[in-house]
Amino acid sequence: MTRQQLIARIRNTGSYLCVGLDSDQTKIPPHLRSAKDPVFEFNRRIIDATKDHCVAYKINTAFYEAEGVKGWETMQRTVNYIPKTHFTIADAKRGDIGNTSAQYARAFFETLSFDAITVAPYMGEDSVRPFLEYKDKWTILLGLTSNTGANDFELQPAGDGPLYEKVLTTAAGWGTPENLMYVVGATRAEEFTRIRQLTPDHFYLVPGIGAQGGSLEEISKKAMNKDVGLLVNASRAIIFASLGEDFAEAAGEAAKQYRESMRGYL
Amino acid sequence: MTRQQLIARIRNTGSYLCVGLDSDQTKIPPHLRSAKDPVFEFNRRIIDATKDHCVAYKINTAFYEAEGVKGWETMQRTVNYIPKTHFTIADAKRGDIGNTSAQYARAFFETLSFDAITVAPYMGEDSVRPFLEYKDKWTILLGLTSNTGANDFELQPAGDGPLYEKVLTTAAGWGTPENLMYVVGATRAEEFTRIRQLTPDHFYLVPGIGAQGGSLEEISKKAMNKDVGLLVNASRAIIFASLGEDFAEAAGEAAKQYRESMRGYL
Repeated sequence: MTRQQLIARIRNTGSYLCVGLDSDQTKIPPHLRSAKDPVFEFNRRIIDATKDHCVAYKINTAFYEAEGVKGWETMQRTVNYIPKTHFTIADAKRGDIGNTSAQYARAFFETLSFDAITVAPYMGEDSVRPFLEYKDKWTILLGLTSNTGANDFELQPAGDGPLYEKVLTTAAGWGTPENLMYVVGATRAEEFTRIRQLTPDHFYLVPGIGAQGGSLEEISKKAMNKDVGLLVNASRAIIFASLGEDFAEAAGEAAKQYRESMRGYL
Repeated sequence: MTRQQLIARIRNTGSYLCVGLDSDQTKIPPHLRSAKDPVFEFNRRIIDATKDHCVAYKINTAFYEAEGVKGWETMQRTVNYIPKTHFTIADAKRGDIGNTSAQYARAFFETLSFDAITVAPYMGEDSVRPFLEYKDKWTILLGLTSNTGANDFELQPAGDGPLYEKVLTTAAGWGTPENLMYVVGATRAEEFTRIRQLTPDHFYLVPGIGAQGGSLEEISKKAMNKDVGLLVNASRAIIFASLGEDFAEAAGEAAKQYRESMRGYL
């Protein structure tokens, strides 16, 4: 999906919501557990219920890998089920030496046909480059994450500013706003103004609203640019809005509420 | 596997060689391609031919994920085939917020029964902690990698020294030499003396000899400690020593030569 297509989709939907399919199988409602693939059955109903309110889905690969071969099958089925109108993200945090990153790119852009993958920056340019080489595919590089561990390295001094700023500005030279986004956690609202100054044109994938406590309003006011420039993710707050038989309706309702707030900020 | 068991194994074998199963399916000898699972068939013969000369196997997950569900099945078969006497490493470079890293730990320590996993440090302590909580399992944290991209962040100033030193010393407080190792690339021989001073007791997983050009002799002289403290990995130089029908014999011979050199350094 191109940047223009993504922006058009956001404008048409009135939403920059990404639904995170962190489908922890221990939280799947009991009445689905007899299905052949309970996690896929859960995802399918969540997608059906939320697709009118969001523009993207993010699959957290860890929850699928934890189930081994079966989980990888569920991931494949799920990405195939997501409507082609929606932007698909493999939240996989990969990154390795060049010949290995090329294999990860093949895994997530070819074998599985995701539009985007999250990538860890620690190993530098040649670990990121293979992902950037795919036309109309996206690399979403970790910038400043939402967890407390961000204090250990990301926020520590590195040259003229904290390490995450060095990552943002260095990586901006590797890709363009047409193929590179950054992960910036919603719990970092105090940093958003500065981050937007450093990278005025890039999209950010923003996790951390809902269960992790970030504010949608504050992020939207501080970080939106003329092309929107935001995909805000909610996972648990949507997909586990109810743990009962009404989980899909509850997820749809939660997604709708986010969309209504977002429409106000657009 | 415990540290004492690993050290005993190294002493008894006279080797600290790790064989890297970066089994790129495009390089599998043609005569294996009609097998039901050609990559497993390749791995099985490589393991049979090298097991007397090495103490560890490292599976580079990217090469398996590139094949999707089928690749994940091959990875499962391969890790199950490796003799229990050998230390098994998932070279997966994972790391995410705590609840997600816990799923990755389950994937590689429970669903697949690896002894160790490589982990990226960027997101800090809570992204690493879930891996450290498993008894007799190992976290192998990226320190200073062998690729040119290490110059982008790892070798850049961060406080009193380069970033990778901060990673080594900070993470040393999260785990112990009983459950934490570091990745230090063999192409960084000039840094090894300093690294050993900073982390005198830890094991290092050292990739980068062979295809990437690092020197086994130099690493061994600079970085060995009283408990050996080294697992030196070779991947392409062993598994693709021959691309013909004699690939297994050639791999066994290459592994044997490494072992003979290592025996001299022990």
